[in-house]
Amino acid sequence: VGSALSFWAWGRADRFPDLAARRALAEQVEFLTGRAVGPPRDLPVAEKVRLPPPRLAEKARAPVVPFGGGTSVVGGVEPALPAGFNGVVSLDLGRLDRVLEVDEVSRCARVQAGIRGPALEEQLAAHGLTFRHYPQSFEFSTLGGWIATRAAGHFATLATRIDHQVQAVRMLTPRGPYETPRVPSSGAGPAPQGLVLGSEGTLGVITEAWMRVLRPPRWRSRATVFFDGFAAGAHAARELAQSGLFPSNCRLLDPGEALVHGVATGGAAVLLLGFESADHPLDAWMARGLAVAGAHGGRCPDGPSSGERTGDAADAWRDAFFRAPYLQSALVSLGVLADTFETACTWDRFESLHETVVSRVEEALRLHCGAGLLTCRLTHVYPDGAAPYYTFVAPARAGAEIEQWREVKRAAADAVAAAGGTVTHHHAVGRVHRPWYDRERPEPFGRVLRAAKETLDPAGVLNPGVLME
Amino acid sequence: VGSALSFWAWGRADRFPDLAARRALAEQVEFLTGRAVGPPRDLPVAEKVRLPPPRLAEKARAPVVPFGGGTSVVGGVEPALPAGFNGVVSLDLGRLDRVLEVDEVSRCARVQAGIRGPALEEQLAAHGLTFRHYPQSFEFSTLGGWIATRAAGHFATLATRIDHQVQAVRMLTPRGPYETPRVPSSGAGPAPQGLVLGSEGTLGVITEAWMRVLRPPRWRSRATVFFDGFAAGAHAARELAQSGLFPSNCRLLDPGEALVHGVATGGAAVLLLGFESADHPLDAWMARGLAVAGAHGGRCPDGPSSGERTGDAADAWRDAFFRAPYLQSALVSLGVLADTFETACTWDRFESLHETVVSRVEEALRLHCGAGLLTCRLTHVYPDGAAPYYTFVAPARAGAEIEQWREVKRAAADAVAAAGGTVTHHHAVGRVHRPWYDRERPEPFGRVLRAAKETLDPAGVLNPGVLME
Repeated sequence: VGSALSFWAWGRADRFPDLAARRALAEQVEFLTGRAVGPPRDLPVAEKVRLPPPRLAEKARAPVVPFGGGTSVVGGVEPALPAGFNGVVSLDLGRLDRVLEVDEVSRCARVQAGIRGPALEEQLAAHGLTFRHYPQSFEFSTLGGWIATRAAGHFATLATRIDHQVQAVRMLTPRGPYETPRVPSSGAGPAPQGLVLGSEGTLGVITEAWMRVLRPPRWRSRATVFFDGFAAGAHAARELAQSGLFPSNCRLLDPGEALVHGVATGGAAVLLLGFESADHPLDAWMARGLAVAGAHGGRCPDGPSSGERTGDAADAWRDAFFRAPYLQSALVSLGVLADTFETACTWDRFESLHETVVSRVEEALRLHCGAGLLTCRLTHVYPDGAAPYYTFVAPARAGAEIEQWREVKRAAADAVAAAGGTVTHHHAVGRVHRPWYDRERPEPFGRVLRAAKETLDPAGVLNPGVLME
Repeated sequence: VGSALSFWAWGRADRFPDLAARRALAEQVEFLTGRAVGPPRDLPVAEKVRLPPPRLAEKARAPVVPFGGGTSVVGGVEPALPAGFNGVVSLDLGRLDRVLEVDEVSRCARVQAGIRGPALEEQLAAHGLTFRHYPQSFEFSTLGGWIATRAAGHFATLATRIDHQVQAVRMLTPRGPYETPRVPSSGAGPAPQGLVLGSEGTLGVITEAWMRVLRPPRWRSRATVFFDGFAAGAHAARELAQSGLFPSNCRLLDPGEALVHGVATGGAAVLLLGFESADHPLDAWMARGLAVAGAHGGRCPDGPSSGERTGDAADAWRDAFFRAPYLQSALVSLGVLADTFETACTWDRFESLHETVVSRVEEALRLHCGAGLLTCRLTHVYPDGAAPYYTFVAPARAGAEIEQWREVKRAAADAVAAAGGTVTHHHAVGRVHRPWYDRERPEPFGRVLRAAKETLDPAGVLNPGVLME
């Protein structure tokens, strides 16, 4: 189960970087942004926080906020108290942590919603199965949270989003259980699970789901491909996404992103290309994948590896991937702003979106922080578009951090919206993305969502303020 | 454009089989069912039908039924007149027949909803693109109809359903336009297009959509694989669906289905296996596909073909596939019941579902028609299940045809529901499937759908009686 979670920072408290590590981190940021950082601040102490005693009574008008792993980055589980309510119930689903049933023939499993990534993998492994959904929050986030936020995971193509893995889902609403039929596909009316996926705790509490699972990959093939520029790499990623080869990994890092994640590129953009299969060797797939990349100037000096070899760029990147949220917490403790934002757009808009985002966010970093670093990677690619993911790091002024962050976030989301991207590819809406979501959402759908809320949660106690008023 | 459509039978009037062909058909049915058939009946004559003059006034309470190709097999476009309404408007979308815009970089196109299959392919071909969605109604049905009914098409795996091809959609509702954002993927709340897909004209009129399109396949590989029994073939189809090879065609025909569709098998079940790609040769894919089939006893005496060769089983089957609805009309004119029904279920339930359906429907055919023939094919396969498609043919009694059909249909849908299948994989709900759909649909979702209807169509004029009261 592991050690205790930090009550304020990412993940486990004993994984938070110590003082020496934080000082080294400060030096790195100073080098990259050219600005002084630190000194390390005092860390919050749980014992100093005073909580009011629970005072929930049966008739209390108290909002209910379902809580899985608490890893939302968009204010999705904040106990915000709207007017007219008394107190907030944070509904911890952590005890719903079991795989209840496995159907090996149809390759699916009935799983409780409070289960975290590692426990899910461990229980499936007993049946020779795997789920292979690795969001950055994998260690802490839960199946119910993934479904409620339409999380994106391991696969760069095809089954990029948890939606693809949900065969059937059960959600408890204030008006009774909402249980979708267990079928592989149906054409009977609008898909009923479509209302559950992405509902972010506003329509009900997801309690369990039948999930599609996999045999563990027996064959793997991966390659690190270097491009002279991000644009050339993006062209290759697009052709790979449209090729029908369906790589499991097709992540393109810009030079800054590669450097920050410990992948040495000598200033090149780098594409992490991977295939995996439980059924067949992948030589033909990788050979064609490298040919496509090569046609766009991609160089693969080490050739493809079978995936048994360790220590390559994909390993370095994955390790850094799971370490990154800890670093964010540490950076905040050094007085450094660090956050990410992401989107998805069609390929025809990608270059102008990227240009708009880079210029406007870099301008906002200069204006509000005096300096800053912005990096980009493509996390998921589609035949018709891509999901660019941005990270920014900038010096903060003590006491003004929230306001500085808000300004940069606003510039980023405005730039994304202006350039034709969605406000979020996989970070959900929560409270942070509401203003942009309200504009992006078709107006009549907003009214339908409100009507759905009034139908299933007439008292409005479920996660008020998230997705809609 | 072609000749005039029949006002009562399938497709073009001049394609309806003539008297000699109908007599030959009668003999075939007599041979297969062991019962006398015919004689050919008089055909309906349009001139004898009297229509009341249009009497729509501005304030008339008149339901609106969007009409695309008129190919619904579930009563989806019938001008049923509910109580309290005056007259019915059948809204013909046939003039919305253009590809408006093509984005070759993102491989998508903005297309008007009234376009039929052949016109869509013809207009895309001018850009070197294709859509490759071939329901049996391809010649007549429209893009808007496909979206409204969540049609299934060409591909046996992956993009089986039109849902996968819809990037964004525009629907006119009585409360204004409902337009979803043009992005490849988004995690911002429940997917707004999920309410449009499968709405069957009850929430609005679909007018256009951005659709994902393809480069035409340059490589094809296909094979005809024989199995000693349907069960062995189904095991092979399951493993192929779970293999990650993603065949474009993976249709399994039982011996009767193969015979009816002109594929000679000598009593074997036959799997039509095919791969296609615009990007790469498919030798590795087909080799592994045949190995999987072989491990389940599948025999491929002629080996795979590159798809240039004509006259093989897949060709015979495809020709028969598009001819079948004409034959249904001809059979009805001979006093023979002929219809199809379909479902989808998880693999663990497939064998018992198939057994239940065969025994109960054959019993119903005996009971209500005295005899009959029931055949089955798998049209689409998923990692977690399959879509079996059944055809029945039986002698009818003059004057009792509707009642006989109703009894067989009831037995079929009851059997499917009892065995854990959905009431429809791709024939939609319409009016015919309502009783089973009402039970299959999660009860709270039914209430949400009703609330959505009241929000978007408060007067209830859009296709009343379809999907819900």
